[in-house]
Amino acid sequence: MALHMSSLFLRTLREDPADAEVPSHRLLVRAGYVRRVSPGVYTWLPLGLRVLRNVERIVREEMDAIGAQELLFPALLPKEPFEATGRWTEYGDNIFRVQDRKGADHLLGPTHEEMFTLAVKDLFSSYKDLPLSIYQIQTKFRDEARPRAGVLRGREFVMKDSYSFDVDEAGLDKSYQLHRDAYVRIFDRLGFHYVIVEAMAGAMGGSKSEEFLATAEVGEDTYVRCTSCGYAANVEAVRVPTPSPVAFDGLPAAHVEDTPATPTIETLVDHLNTHFPREDRPWVAGDTLKNVVVMLVHPDGRREPLAIGLPGDREVDEKRLGAQVEPAEVEAFDEKAFAEHPGLVKGYIGPGALGTEGTTGIRYLLDPRVAEGTRWVTGANEPGRHVVDLVAGRDFTADGTIEAAEVRVGDQCPNCEHPLETARGIEMGHVFQLGTKYAEALDLKVLDQNGKLVTVVMGSYGVGVSRAVACVAEGNHDELGLIWPRELSPVDVHIVATGKDEPVFVAAEEIARNLEAQGLSVLVDDRKGVSPGVKFKDSELIGVPTIVVVGRGLASGVVEVKDRRSGARREVAVGEVVDAVVAEVRGS
Amino acid sequence: MALHMSSLFLRTLREDPADAEVPSHRLLVRAGYVRRVSPGVYTWLPLGLRVLRNVERIVREEMDAIGAQELLFPALLPKEPFEATGRWTEYGDNIFRVQDRKGADHLLGPTHEEMFTLAVKDLFSSYKDLPLSIYQIQTKFRDEARPRAGVLRGREFVMKDSYSFDVDEAGLDKSYQLHRDAYVRIFDRLGFHYVIVEAMAGAMGGSKSEEFLATAEVGEDTYVRCTSCGYAANVEAVRVPTPSPVAFDGLPAAHVEDTPATPTIETLVDHLNTHFPREDRPWVAGDTLKNVVVMLVHPDGRREPLAIGLPGDREVDEKRLGAQVEPAEVEAFDEKAFAEHPGLVKGYIGPGALGTEGTTGIRYLLDPRVAEGTRWVTGANEPGRHVVDLVAGRDFTADGTIEAAEVRVGDQCPNCEHPLETARGIEMGHVFQLGTKYAEALDLKVLDQNGKLVTVVMGSYGVGVSRAVACVAEGNHDELGLIWPRELSPVDVHIVATGKDEPVFVAAEEIARNLEAQGLSVLVDDRKGVSPGVKFKDSELIGVPTIVVVGRGLASGVVEVKDRRSGARREVAVGEVVDAVVAEVRGS
Repeated sequence: MALHMSSLFLRTLREDPADAEVPSHRLLVRAGYVRRVSPGVYTWLPLGLRVLRNVERIVREEMDAIGAQELLFPALLPKEPFEATGRWTEYGDNIFRVQDRKGADHLLGPTHEEMFTLAVKDLFSSYKDLPLSIYQIQTKFRDEARPRAGVLRGREFVMKDSYSFDVDEAGLDKSYQLHRDAYVRIFDRLGFHYVIVEAMAGAMGGSKSEEFLATAEVGEDTYVRCTSCGYAANVEAVRVPTPSPVAFDGLPAAHVEDTPATPTIETLVDHLNTHFPREDRPWVAGDTLKNVVVMLVHPDGRREPLAIGLPGDREVDEKRLGAQVEPAEVEAFDEKAFAEHPGLVKGYIGPGALGTEGTTGIRYLLDPRVAEGTRWVTGANEPGRHVVDLVAGRDFTADGTIEAAEVRVGDQCPNCEHPLETARGIEMGHVFQLGTKYAEALDLKVLDQNGKLVTVVMGSYGVGVSRAVACVAEGNHDELGLIWPRELSPVDVHIVATGKDEPVFVAAEEIARNLEAQGLSVLVDDRKGVSPGVKFKDSELIGVPTIVVVGRGLASGVVEVKDRRSGARREVAVGEVVDAVVAEVRGS
Repeated sequence: MALHMSSLFLRTLREDPADAEVPSHRLLVRAGYVRRVSPGVYTWLPLGLRVLRNVERIVREEMDAIGAQELLFPALLPKEPFEATGRWTEYGDNIFRVQDRKGADHLLGPTHEEMFTLAVKDLFSSYKDLPLSIYQIQTKFRDEARPRAGVLRGREFVMKDSYSFDVDEAGLDKSYQLHRDAYVRIFDRLGFHYVIVEAMAGAMGGSKSEEFLATAEVGEDTYVRCTSCGYAANVEAVRVPTPSPVAFDGLPAAHVEDTPATPTIETLVDHLNTHFPREDRPWVAGDTLKNVVVMLVHPDGRREPLAIGLPGDREVDEKRLGAQVEPAEVEAFDEKAFAEHPGLVKGYIGPGALGTEGTTGIRYLLDPRVAEGTRWVTGANEPGRHVVDLVAGRDFTADGTIEAAEVRVGDQCPNCEHPLETARGIEMGHVFQLGTKYAEALDLKVLDQNGKLVTVVMGSYGVGVSRAVACVAEGNHDELGLIWPRELSPVDVHIVATGKDEPVFVAAEEIARNLEAQGLSVLVDDRKGVSPGVKFKDSELIGVPTIVVVGRGLASGVVEVKDRRSGARREVAVGEVVDAVVAEVRGS
């Protein structure tokens, strides 16, 4: 049955909603697809729900095509499995917690690793049962600190999450690749530009991890890309090309110098160039080794100082550092902390004080650029003094490396050394190899071919389904309104009947009926007493890709077929419009 | 793509789950349709999800057919609208409450009256926009005191709820009838026996209200029915046939008598027959007027005594009383309460002390049987004394009537006076006329044809979607397992390949492919090393209506087609099985 504008539960708005920051949010609200209930919580109005279901259908078809089986977990989850994996605590404020009438603790599932793992443990027990991929399309809840941009980042949202279960890493690699290929097909069908970037596994543990980012200026995620070799990674996961160790031969011995009145790296460099000029070229900020100390707060509440050594011309990037130390949180190392660690001389911290072999014993990790044989000026652990010509590997070592320094446009690609670019995107999908983290925490084992219990190897794969609606809108609109890709459009055809002549309305209904008989879905603007101008504006705002205008031309036997995306219009004989439109809808 | 038992995420169980009380629960768990996560919270495994989706499809089709429009509200709802209607308090322990990280209160929607009302207020404003019917199929949450019977009464469950919006009562009547007719079609398609019973509007306010009850011994709802005229009502809503007023002429005057040692109605009746014999027949318990006092606790915490006068041979039915006084709760009138109301002489309470004109001023409501002109023996408000020949309407009046007395098998039908029967059922659907309760509380008004603001008149209509799965199972099983109606079956055909011969498995796959090419869905039991007996048992437990057995007969060119419901089997030539099965599936 065709939808009719005269009765459709919809009101288009001329004004942008006050809280809308991004085009998709503005347009989805103005065109009557979604309405806000509370921050990050939205109602899907009839047209919006149709688009959401179309996204679900595409995701479901591609999941089914790789043999993944759909099931449905509840949203209300008991605390215990999340305690077993430590996430009841780790999630902190980011989840909604609920107590039932008996005082039992629950959470509203923000993600379902524990439930999937336990379900497989419950039902399966042998290598013969594997590989297995199961998925759900389900409403999830997260108490986001900053819900934003309509359904782009909500507190209640729809996700597809799937998990693969294999007996070994080789099986996981296959399952991962199957999902990755399915995701390529899904995002190709959804009709927005995206990139696949290397990502951190983050709180989930595990090894290989890639994100599907929709390229969008309004995106919250920054990623880097190499236009030469195609490398792409989100900022957290960018790798610094590690210099090969160089020989120490011929480097001067380290020497401690007075460096009075050098509160900044700039003043230090000036002082060095004036008083201790380097033999080959002037000192630059990148020759100094800056040692930054932060406080890690572990999920169990334990506080641990961490020192990071990096070139003086780079800052520590909080997001990159955060991703490296998850699930610990990073806090500033405040005056109180300095007071508790008198071995740290603020402004003059040097390697001698750091690392398990240093005077403070504080864990010390180096930026990969601080490679063996590199030569530095750094703090001498005394006020007003620096050590010059300190050589990594010769004069000091650390407890390891860390990728926490800021990434800059022009940094070298880790693969081909071409300069990197940065861009913004929206995380739409994530595929990653969980490994055995959850299987171990929840004791998911199966008997292998030799009758021995082995821990199951898992992969995790997510698509933001409700977010995809915003993302498609973000990538498919113009100044007039939305422009849906055909597979996602709430209906196939929007018929606009204009004027006051009854035959026009009768003809519009007949065209609608005939299109429906061909299997197309139709929205008819049958409103009386609404001007053609308003109807055209609404049709452009709503964004159905094919618009048929039935109006004055009907008297001479023609109607107009408009392509919303190109704006192209053509007159078609009324007797031929059904075939013409069916061909257009099916053909594209 | 056909499902295969060798890889399906399913394990059938030979043993009944320990907590299963009813057949549907036992079988849905044993056959691998659902798994418990916590009390009243279940996971839908692949086969179960397919059945659930089939129920949703049927409901959606019938809702769309009456022009209702689907949308989707969130589950996480802000407190404020529920405060406006008073339900934030009224729900008490029955809802899950959630605070977000900023301390804002939310609830998990147990029902969405407020949200529907506000959505219409948000979008619509004129009589021209009405009538409107909108619905959603959505996951709801209730903190049930006693979740039971698997998905029959859950704490997280799927419901279809719709609401109609009209400018007047006549419009509501039409919308109500449309929904009622759609519900008849839905429940006819779902394939279980049901009755439509008169119901109380309950906490929702409103006027006309009917429930669709699946007839089932395991049901929690008791209803009465008249086999003569077809009247049916749930116990809360049964009406007592009201006697016509009779003339007082010739009735003796009331007289107070000493009735020592008559602590029970039985002893009182004996005493009366001995000392004050009635002129026409002996006194019976039904001649005494019992006055029961209870304490109402209103949602705002206010406590109000209520007196109910009813024939001495009947008890007050807590459920009926509760339904009448909702949203107030009923508590016993304890010693402390008696102490606070010295005008109530326990055991001897009579009308003289009750009602707004009585000595205590306590509100006094009468069972409809205590009609004008009826003659009673009742308490004289003095210890050890009763008043005899007290005539209703002549010697006392009350503040109104109340339907709170127990209903008994054999009571008269309110329509035709035939004796009533009782039976048990499961509430599967509810249609009722909300009237203006929510529209008033939330100020939903539209401009009428005269440009005047009128309050919108609403109807509310619900179907328990996940509950329906249990209900269909309850009505469609035998001792071997489930027997799905075709429209609900997880697949159309279950092909069982038995034995060890490779050609059998090849033929089973070929039949599956050919059935799928005809648009049927198929489950193939392709497990190797599993005995035919186990496979047959599983197929009977799982309950697909048509089972095709490919086994030893294949060598002579035949397979067996089994009807799960009747148990009938027939041999079919392998070349004809696809046509035969398609005809069977389509034909029924």
